[in-house]
Amino acid sequence: MRIDIITVVPGLLDGPFAHSILKRAEDKGLASVRVHNLRDYSNNKKKQVDDYAFGGGAGMVMMIEPIAHIIEALKSEREYDEVIYLTPDGETFNQNMANELSLKGNMIMLCGHYKGVDERVRQRFITKEISIGDFVLSGGELAAAVLTDAIIRLIPGVLNDETSALTDSFQDGLLAPPVYTRPAVYDGMEVPELLLSGHQAKIDEWRFEQSVRRTKERRPDLMEGKDF
Amino acid sequence: MRIDIITVVPGLLDGPFAHSILKRAEDKGLASVRVHNLRDYSNNKKKQVDDYAFGGGAGMVMMIEPIAHIIEALKSEREYDEVIYLTPDGETFNQNMANELSLKGNMIMLCGHYKGVDERVRQRFITKEISIGDFVLSGGELAAAVLTDAIIRLIPGVLNDETSALTDSFQDGLLAPPVYTRPAVYDGMEVPELLLSGHQAKIDEWRFEQSVRRTKERRPDLMEGKDF
Repeated sequence: MRIDIITVVPGLLDGPFAHSILKRAEDKGLASVRVHNLRDYSNNKKKQVDDYAFGGGAGMVMMIEPIAHIIEALKSEREYDEVIYLTPDGETFNQNMANELSLKGNMIMLCGHYKGVDERVRQRFITKEISIGDFVLSGGELAAAVLTDAIIRLIPGVLNDETSALTDSFQDGLLAPPVYTRPAVYDGMEVPELLLSGHQAKIDEWRFEQSVRRTKERRPDLMEGKDF
Repeated sequence: MRIDIITVVPGLLDGPFAHSILKRAEDKGLASVRVHNLRDYSNNKKKQVDDYAFGGGAGMVMMIEPIAHIIEALKSEREYDEVIYLTPDGETFNQNMANELSLKGNMIMLCGHYKGVDERVRQRFITKEISIGDFVLSGGELAAAVLTDAIIRLIPGVLNDETSALTDSFQDGLLAPPVYTRPAVYDGMEVPELLLSGHQAKIDEWRFEQSVRRTKERRPDLMEGKDF
């Protein structure tokens, strides 16, 4: 998998992609992420990539021309499965979408900034519009980092223990059960005795019950249509 | 506002906090963000902060002791309004929550990693559990960066143009309308003529209609109980 991220704040993504599982995925040759500075594709002497909105109002709009230049340049080098625009009015990202995207080959992710991109960019180039949630960020960069992390960790071989991702929240439609580690007693707080018992079948049963209970309490919407 | 972030991967947050509006908020003295390496609070020679889960199974669990040390150290220095744990089974973050949190003073954000934290950390120290969405990340760091960005940009004076955040998607329960900038014609694609007309009242009306239409098409759930 190759992900090309287009941004006006490339430095913002240095940390997320130099650390943790994304670095590991690169080192293992399982995925590569390239961050492109949109300003390098401006024809303008001032490296301008945004301008005032037609019709007035607060906030700048990202111009179509620099974006067209870089997307066309990337597409001339390889095929892309998706050109994703990160935007608060896109389809809400979830684990199913992460699973689907983890099977793709090459993707471009365009980070919005300011008031967003000229509408014509969306009409001409974008194949998928994604939001990470019902809130507004100062740009699409953190959303692109979130998508990249959620997708890349699902590629087989990226996580050390392949079963690890399968027992996460959402993979089976349930929240994860509570977890405990040493010490068995901390300042009077004890670990549930069963977890120390060695009865694996009973422990598995307890964990499943806890998952169901926690999901019912916190996210009854995830339980709809299920019969536990 | 002061935000203290506790993480095992501090480098991951270098980029997000050195750039963009977070940097600007720091420079203006409106908010400050401190990133703490949890390993510095381990009593263990190996700087260990995680251990195997009681009851077995894949994935490591973050131990209570180092987390207790740092939270107690921070609390001895100042009062905190919230101690937030970023976790997929928390309450789903949205713009209303961002608005509320933007009015707080000091907050601690604890980033989960591996299989999450020992359940007793949640019982003893955490005042609010937040998820940024129904997907799993390799850690809570990007979620903490997302929260921090969404919150800090709402503090008056952080954005250059204060009206800018008020016209974002979600602030009025509607998605933002399409935006356009120069050139007026790009490769045969024209900007809607009205936006070039100078009729501000008609433009405002068009934008409102477009917002309503886009919300109905893409997010009918946001329209429930509204009568446009």
